[in-house]
Amino acid sequence: MVSRRVQDAITRAAGRDADAETAARARQDVLTKPQGALGRLEEISIALAGMTGHVCYVPRKKTVFALAGDHGVVAEGVSLFPQAVTVQMVANFARGGAGLNVLARHCGVDVVVADLGVAGDLSGCAGIEHCKIAPGTANIALGPAMSEDQMWQAVEAGMALVESRPGLELIATGEMGIGNTTPATAIACALLRREPEDIAGPGTGLPPERVREKAAVVRRALDVNRPDAANPWDVLRKVGGFEIAGLVGVVLASAVRRIPCVVDGFISASAALIAARACPNAQGYLIAGHRSADRGHDAMLDALGLRPILDLDLRLGEGTGAVLAMSIVEAAGKILAEMATFAEAGVSEAD
Amino acid sequence: MVSRRVQDAITRAAGRDADAETAARARQDVLTKPQGALGRLEEISIALAGMTGHVCYVPRKKTVFALAGDHGVVAEGVSLFPQAVTVQMVANFARGGAGLNVLARHCGVDVVVADLGVAGDLSGCAGIEHCKIAPGTANIALGPAMSEDQMWQAVEAGMALVESRPGLELIATGEMGIGNTTPATAIACALLRREPEDIAGPGTGLPPERVREKAAVVRRALDVNRPDAANPWDVLRKVGGFEIAGLVGVVLASAVRRIPCVVDGFISASAALIAARACPNAQGYLIAGHRSADRGHDAMLDALGLRPILDLDLRLGEGTGAVLAMSIVEAAGKILAEMATFAEAGVSEAD
Repeated sequence: MVSRRVQDAITRAAGRDADAETAARARQDVLTKPQGALGRLEEISIALAGMTGHVCYVPRKKTVFALAGDHGVVAEGVSLFPQAVTVQMVANFARGGAGLNVLARHCGVDVVVADLGVAGDLSGCAGIEHCKIAPGTANIALGPAMSEDQMWQAVEAGMALVESRPGLELIATGEMGIGNTTPATAIACALLRREPEDIAGPGTGLPPERVREKAAVVRRALDVNRPDAANPWDVLRKVGGFEIAGLVGVVLASAVRRIPCVVDGFISASAALIAARACPNAQGYLIAGHRSADRGHDAMLDALGLRPILDLDLRLGEGTGAVLAMSIVEAAGKILAEMATFAEAGVSEAD
Repeated sequence: MVSRRVQDAITRAAGRDADAETAARARQDVLTKPQGALGRLEEISIALAGMTGHVCYVPRKKTVFALAGDHGVVAEGVSLFPQAVTVQMVANFARGGAGLNVLARHCGVDVVVADLGVAGDLSGCAGIEHCKIAPGTANIALGPAMSEDQMWQAVEAGMALVESRPGLELIATGEMGIGNTTPATAIACALLRREPEDIAGPGTGLPPERVREKAAVVRRALDVNRPDAANPWDVLRKVGGFEIAGLVGVVLASAVRRIPCVVDGFISASAALIAARACPNAQGYLIAGHRSADRGHDAMLDALGLRPILDLDLRLGEGTGAVLAMSIVEAAGKILAEMATFAEAGVSEAD
């Protein structure tokens, strides 16, 4: 049974505001440029209007939620990096030395780092949110990743990270967790009814033979757990991860508060897919930040009906692509809000 | 004969610094991320090193040169908008109301607007550079666009805009000129030996039958002028434009000063192509800002060996796509300069 808080969010998430979209489109058409000449920037500004109900929406307060968790399935050799890297990288985030920090500073994005389920001890680490459900999930190749209680705790913790922060104007998803492309692959396969061999990719850089082994691990996880494709919560509990569950909560809370949410790469897309299946209205608040170099990302974006903003061959995760895209989203909002109209500028219109 | 100042620039432009590129690549490989995981951001940071000779190059002072000119060929009905829009839009640039201004403010880019050959009177317009060669080119469907003297004046004026400004760290090209996709199409056809029907596009939004008429105008311009495909200056003089010639100068001067230069859309690419044919070393300082929705842009980028950073269906020109891309270029520089290394962060490396 769905937790009361989560069910409440699903019920409260509303659809987009069609009137605001229509008004935004009408304003785009009188700005000093040929109609449609700003392409996707125009589309994004119109989507922002529909999401927020504000015709001219300029998201200045931008926040990325980088949630971390570990994965029992690393015992199967699915990653090039040792599990200790998760805790080391969370500390790197907290000190500002990771790729995410550099790009977030560049784009004026606040970084919220949260431990949803890291295997190492982070209790002494300042500057992070401590929401640890357990020190890593169980090995999905042998059984379910987590209990039902743990799942709702993780989803609600993600929701609380958003709910507790006033003034958010644009949200992005991010994550850290050695091995987490494996549960994300399992989620995609389960929900999209695809074969592991079609979705599994090299993650942090596995050679081809190890990608085949990773696909076989995903197949075992699906065979052992038999997640119900029609029930996203069953999929999340059996083959997901704590940081992925937390991100599902971030997405749901963003929809409830009508805050546009920029989805990062492969792992973030798996969380967005769970959220959209559980709450179809949540899909309307999603923006795809970038096309990941990870195989299988396109399949998830297609299922979400999203076209990515950037395509820079990124495959780092963390939220790096989403943060860069946030700046483009803000720029799109400014185009609609700040450009002069033909009448204001005394510019002649087309034939 | 090539003007002495232009020939001097061609002679002085040097190739990239291979040692700096090697050092930049080596540093990328010890930053706290899987090797290659930041994709094109890594490539761009390495290219910046080669262009400037600085291993870690973070371009903070960013400047777009938006050059304006009019075109006699508008008499053939090649644009949806009346010629008066060029002067009106330059005034809009000067007041800060155009798309370029909005995006430049967002990305922290200085805008230099210059009149290279606008048909209207801009003498009273403050905040622009007055470099008018003539009030518009001659109609290329009937004869050459400009005299040889006028061409060198325009190229040298573009060079001077760059040379006179100290401290430039990243340059972008931009332009304004009703009808200027027609000379840009003619340049691409002449230099790439392509048919006008393959390159001509809708520009500001021509319907299909008028695109066919535009292609026929380009064909007449090529038949009447017979530009020498092996001589880029002959092509520029006969079927170019004053703002395009000025941008050739901007590109040449950026190569001489080893300042990376972000190329905007279709018109800017035609100028970059002239510059690269006249000065092969200048090609090494070019970065393609975006893939324009204009047909024929890809053909020019391919010829320049450039892969665009953004693909947002933009077809406004002005420098809008280049300015957005400048922020990504700056971000790439910051990744290399600011990310922690594995050793600094105490993060374990891959197997």
